[in-house]
Amino acid sequence: MTGAGDRPATYAAAGVDIDAADRTVERYGEIARRTAGPAVLSGVGPFAGLFRLGEYRQPVLVSSADGVGTKLLIAAAMGRFDSVGRDLVNHCVNDILTAGAEPLFFLDYLASADLPQERRVEVVSGVGAACEEHGVALIGGETADLPDIYRPGTFDLAGVIIGVVEREAVIDGSRLAAGDALIALPASGLQTNGYSLVREIWGVGKGLGIQHDRELLETEYEELGGTLGEALLAVHGSFLEALRPLLPRIHGMAHITGGGIAGNLSRIVPDDLSADLERSSWRAPALFELIQRTGSVDDAEMLRTFNMGVGMVIAVAAGDADMVLAELPGSWRIGELAHRAAGVPTVRGLER
Amino acid sequence: MTGAGDRPATYAAAGVDIDAADRTVERYGEIARRTAGPAVLSGVGPFAGLFRLGEYRQPVLVSSADGVGTKLLIAAAMGRFDSVGRDLVNHCVNDILTAGAEPLFFLDYLASADLPQERRVEVVSGVGAACEEHGVALIGGETADLPDIYRPGTFDLAGVIIGVVEREAVIDGSRLAAGDALIALPASGLQTNGYSLVREIWGVGKGLGIQHDRELLETEYEELGGTLGEALLAVHGSFLEALRPLLPRIHGMAHITGGGIAGNLSRIVPDDLSADLERSSWRAPALFELIQRTGSVDDAEMLRTFNMGVGMVIAVAAGDADMVLAELPGSWRIGELAHRAAGVPTVRGLER
Repeated sequence: MTGAGDRPATYAAAGVDIDAADRTVERYGEIARRTAGPAVLSGVGPFAGLFRLGEYRQPVLVSSADGVGTKLLIAAAMGRFDSVGRDLVNHCVNDILTAGAEPLFFLDYLASADLPQERRVEVVSGVGAACEEHGVALIGGETADLPDIYRPGTFDLAGVIIGVVEREAVIDGSRLAAGDALIALPASGLQTNGYSLVREIWGVGKGLGIQHDRELLETEYEELGGTLGEALLAVHGSFLEALRPLLPRIHGMAHITGGGIAGNLSRIVPDDLSADLERSSWRAPALFELIQRTGSVDDAEMLRTFNMGVGMVIAVAAGDADMVLAELPGSWRIGELAHRAAGVPTVRGLER
Repeated sequence: MTGAGDRPATYAAAGVDIDAADRTVERYGEIARRTAGPAVLSGVGPFAGLFRLGEYRQPVLVSSADGVGTKLLIAAAMGRFDSVGRDLVNHCVNDILTAGAEPLFFLDYLASADLPQERRVEVVSGVGAACEEHGVALIGGETADLPDIYRPGTFDLAGVIIGVVEREAVIDGSRLAAGDALIALPASGLQTNGYSLVREIWGVGKGLGIQHDRELLETEYEELGGTLGEALLAVHGSFLEALRPLLPRIHGMAHITGGGIAGNLSRIVPDDLSADLERSSWRAPALFELIQRTGSVDDAEMLRTFNMGVGMVIAVAAGDADMVLAELPGSWRIGELAHRAAGVPTVRGLER
């Protein structure tokens, strides 16, 4: 009974300093206020966030929960705490965009054993900045002090986004048809997937010390045009602005996250269709080649772990393809939907 | 470069087994389907959850993010993984209830380094069960494998709830007035706050071994009518069913979570009022006395760490108090709102 000795037990000594946390919460409030449009009802107490929904005929609320994964450990090793919040929000924005939704508001969850208050504010600032960019209200959140759950120096960041779309405008895959063109949008980097494999390969965030990790991450690679760490921390790109004007023409959308191109595309392709991809239509960016070479990772493992440079795949009518390609700089035709014969996999053409 | 040796690097070896996770996700799907009412649009792909909002004149969406805190470590030590999901959902339900909202849907976030798949399903089953009880759709969630962030054998569980209330029915504190009666509803136990202090006192979840922890938690205490572990794992009570019929009469509501009675009540009391409480109106349940005695915790620390047996405080017009007390078994009049003179604290009367 640790606390039964001379010193009376206090919550602060147990690793939970309510006063310090209160001061940080005030700074979260400043960040949140910058994101609050007229739809946010303020001054309604601390237990919930309130958002007035605008005028919709048949509103469908679209939501997604995501985390940042162990990209957080790369960020921590580099002492960069402002970008992971952007990763999180952009990931969530893309997820609900696949259903055609416009994002409305966001709630974050930040937990650690000992993350300094100043670092917490930096993390939440990144969340707030990405919310501002998207016109999304940061309406709530939770910061948890969890001694004995998190390893020292680490933290976790997750969040939930809520958006809205009219019932008739929901992208539900019902318009996907044989002959549709599949168009790929470039990923900004690894987005938020595959970091545990990367860390295994380089031995980063594995308890070998901050000096060791930093040296590796600060190594310059000519093919990356900069350091490994910078390439790994590239912010998960948001596709909202680029795709919003095209939503009425989009038949289906796959956000390429955990599980890679095939794993995510197969989730939206109907049973009677297959996605026939052209592996030669693009070359994975240098970062992926560096990872594969350094880790002796085989092709199949690369494909199911990483996005390989593909951030999002959208399906449009073949006749719309050229127009859509012209509207989306950096996009390319990665394949098409075809009738699927028995025994044919849902996604094919990725193997070299 | 750990993976640069003989063995090619794989994501599974790095601690992320996508196949096993996929099988678990299927079981999450079964749990979620049991909670899905007609408002849930199914079959719209894996990236987002879709919920048709019903007919409202001026809908206000009410949301809250919460975690379970290190109650998770008590649960893990006892090998009980089904109740923490109930804690989480009930906590969230109460939070948005403070604004008068009816809960609609929920998203959970479960993260660990190594929580066995079967345990994950148990955790999410608890989330699903509490959602079912409240008629809330478990519409999405994220399960993250985060090696090197979580300590072995631990996990974290958080979530976000979304509810709705008509604009005119929002409980925003504007009706709080001097003379209002403050009525307390009993907490079922510690709810979800103060566990890090409890664990400090008994040395549970501090790396002293599962045998050590279990023996302590399985100790019977006469005043608890059972074991310490059972008392500590008592599920965070939901006040939705009890308070729903009374919402039109409620002027304000404080959910007693982190920060205790004063910390939470002070957040809803307007600047010109004070909450005058009667410390002698109730006696904290035996569990709190046991904690205080065992840890030599002083009164002030107890009051700002624990709920002391008070789960929720509601404010109603003095003339409604007797009716409300009669409708809420176990409730009691804990004090009243009064005009506040300069220099008087927002909440007073708790000190003995």
